[in-house]
Amino acid sequence: MNYREMAKQVKAAGRILGASEETLRNGALLAIADALIGSKEMIFAANAKDLAAADGLPAPVRGRLKFDEHKLSDVVSGLRSLAGLPDPVSKILFERELDEDLVLQRVTCPIGVIGVIFESRPDALVQISGLCIKSGNGAILKGGSEAKETNRALFTVIDEAGRAAGLPAHFAALVEDRAGVDELIRCHEEIDLLIPRGSNAFVRYIMDNSEIPVMGHAAGICHVYVDKDADLDKAIPIIVDAKTQYPAACNAAETLLLHEDIADEVMRRLEGAAPVEVTYIEARGEEDFTEYLDYKMTVKRVGGVDEAIEHINRYGSHHTDAIVTENEETAERFLTLVDSAGVYHNASTRFADGFRYGFGAEVGISTGKLPPRGPVGLDGLVTYKYKLRGSGHIVRDYAEGKRSFHFRERS
Amino acid sequence: MNYREMAKQVKAAGRILGASEETLRNGALLAIADALIGSKEMIFAANAKDLAAADGLPAPVRGRLKFDEHKLSDVVSGLRSLAGLPDPVSKILFERELDEDLVLQRVTCPIGVIGVIFESRPDALVQISGLCIKSGNGAILKGGSEAKETNRALFTVIDEAGRAAGLPAHFAALVEDRAGVDELIRCHEEIDLLIPRGSNAFVRYIMDNSEIPVMGHAAGICHVYVDKDADLDKAIPIIVDAKTQYPAACNAAETLLLHEDIADEVMRRLEGAAPVEVTYIEARGEEDFTEYLDYKMTVKRVGGVDEAIEHINRYGSHHTDAIVTENEETAERFLTLVDSAGVYHNASTRFADGFRYGFGAEVGISTGKLPPRGPVGLDGLVTYKYKLRGSGHIVRDYAEGKRSFHFRERS
Repeated sequence: MNYREMAKQVKAAGRILGASEETLRNGALLAIADALIGSKEMIFAANAKDLAAADGLPAPVRGRLKFDEHKLSDVVSGLRSLAGLPDPVSKILFERELDEDLVLQRVTCPIGVIGVIFESRPDALVQISGLCIKSGNGAILKGGSEAKETNRALFTVIDEAGRAAGLPAHFAALVEDRAGVDELIRCHEEIDLLIPRGSNAFVRYIMDNSEIPVMGHAAGICHVYVDKDADLDKAIPIIVDAKTQYPAACNAAETLLLHEDIADEVMRRLEGAAPVEVTYIEARGEEDFTEYLDYKMTVKRVGGVDEAIEHINRYGSHHTDAIVTENEETAERFLTLVDSAGVYHNASTRFADGFRYGFGAEVGISTGKLPPRGPVGLDGLVTYKYKLRGSGHIVRDYAEGKRSFHFRERS
Repeated sequence: MNYREMAKQVKAAGRILGASEETLRNGALLAIADALIGSKEMIFAANAKDLAAADGLPAPVRGRLKFDEHKLSDVVSGLRSLAGLPDPVSKILFERELDEDLVLQRVTCPIGVIGVIFESRPDALVQISGLCIKSGNGAILKGGSEAKETNRALFTVIDEAGRAAGLPAHFAALVEDRAGVDELIRCHEEIDLLIPRGSNAFVRYIMDNSEIPVMGHAAGICHVYVDKDADLDKAIPIIVDAKTQYPAACNAAETLLLHEDIADEVMRRLEGAAPVEVTYIEARGEEDFTEYLDYKMTVKRVGGVDEAIEHINRYGSHHTDAIVTENEETAERFLTLVDSAGVYHNASTRFADGFRYGFGAEVGISTGKLPPRGPVGLDGLVTYKYKLRGSGHIVRDYAEGKRSFHFRERS
């Protein structure tokens, strides 16, 4: 397999897809949803092969690998709701008349080709394909090798149903071997954005070894800071929720910062407060400021909000951090000075999620500084271009003072 | 000089600057403008040293190096107009009530620390410092070595006047040696964005050797395509303007694509049409699709708009490309399918510029696919964060169906 050639094909197809009508893309999403239901026996049979081969793997891995009626129904309703969302492409972000008959528009357009490398969850393949079709991007998909048979079955259904519904050939491509990843991350002429999902080490590897822009997060070290002016009736449920509601998520809290004045009382009230047992580890040093993804939490006592802010900016991962306080001024200081994608006042870090933010669909969560930052919805899969329409306008006329700009906003 | 330590100092100062009031930042810009006027003899004396050392250099280099009353007046009025522009920081991009008392905002904030590496134009140092102060970013400035004395004089004035006006110490830092560049591009923990200006090879070097996001363009290979349905009374002035109005600019056109039906007539009418002599080179092969930055232009005949689009997407630099045609359908096809930051209909490529777009100030022009793309104004020097304000909200309540989101847009 020549991966660069594959990427070129997807790039060419992506241009056609990106220029296609909204109705064509939405129709394809609905047709794919139907085709998945129609081919479910073939897909389940492929999944049985993957599950058989994964016999010795841990239960959570097998759980993610499993593709059954329940997951099929989830991805099908995901595709159908995607078809109903507003078109992210060709939205006019602003329109300005620069001069008579000279009109500038900033218009959204697809990014081009998106390479997504994801864990062994076959449902992710369907979700990502759907997001790319909706946003008019070509997709190169590399799934976890444990899900190989299921991924191939799902991809075949999506590819055939998509093309039958009018999408251009090569609107998406499937990469099956690990060696392909190292080839693909070098295709910076063809691939415009990489979205790696999976372990922190893997995401870091991609970020360090590719010139292609990467959207994602390598770590999720989120904090809850409980201020001296906190209402502990809010603080305790927030800490428990941020740690235990789903500890494997990147937006679960890992470090608890306690103002020294209320630290002992918080620790006392935390005892038995969670529905599961949580191990609280008093911080000894830097090695404790880590991501557990488990019912463990580092506790550090601080002298005040400024020490908390400094700690978070130094040891955090710029993901999501919360303060619990009744003091508005302290809260605003925290929200302004903490340098993270999400800064929360009196709310659990677990809200950091595209669906909870009301985006309708989530591409992922980005901890980079430049947009898109934080939970990324469909609007993170488009970029923009400037369209300028004139009637023979030239710059010399303006440079020589014969004409001048009047800059009238139209929207 | 330990550059990482320097970058850490600027990072810490940037956080304070980023949280400062608009009035403080605008006041500093005005104070710096006054201080530059007050210190002009010292600055001119420093510039005389640089000019004396540059005795053997070509006239255009010496012209850029020169810092006189005229350039002083330009940068001073630039700073004053910057002070009058709207604050790019703390703008609420959207506000959504997720549930009762749970309000999400997307709010602009500074990027953090911006490293700018610029050519031997001392006025650039003042402009860039001003843009970074206005947008609340810490700035690390590395100017061309030919302007060393002038840069040091200007930086001293800006640093002292800025601090006297209340900006935090280390709000900006000056790097004087070339070795510093290679140190700085490795400081990806401290520097959030690099803006390299200068030669294509230099920009490419920075892009290839740093993990830090880079904003800029390595080349400006812009095209004018004259369609068979073009009004040649528009086409000829547009070609002449795009090539000759300022051929050293990145938005000057380098390749002229002519529909074969009208190619001969266009070439005939171009003769003598420009105020200077232009050499038109009929394309022989790939080596002619290059950036001349001179009164030279490659000419290629194509069979139609699709061949023009394909050529531009393959050999262009995704900067700015124009079509001349009276056929609206052909024009829309070009605007949709050409994958460039700027796509123009019946207008010269020379309009690709932040001031001409009405941005008030320009940071540079970016040819990357992700935003900010094209001419970048002050809004390209800020990013955003999500602020979520609740009153003890936890995710478990939503997961268990006790509460539900209602997603009410507030702005």
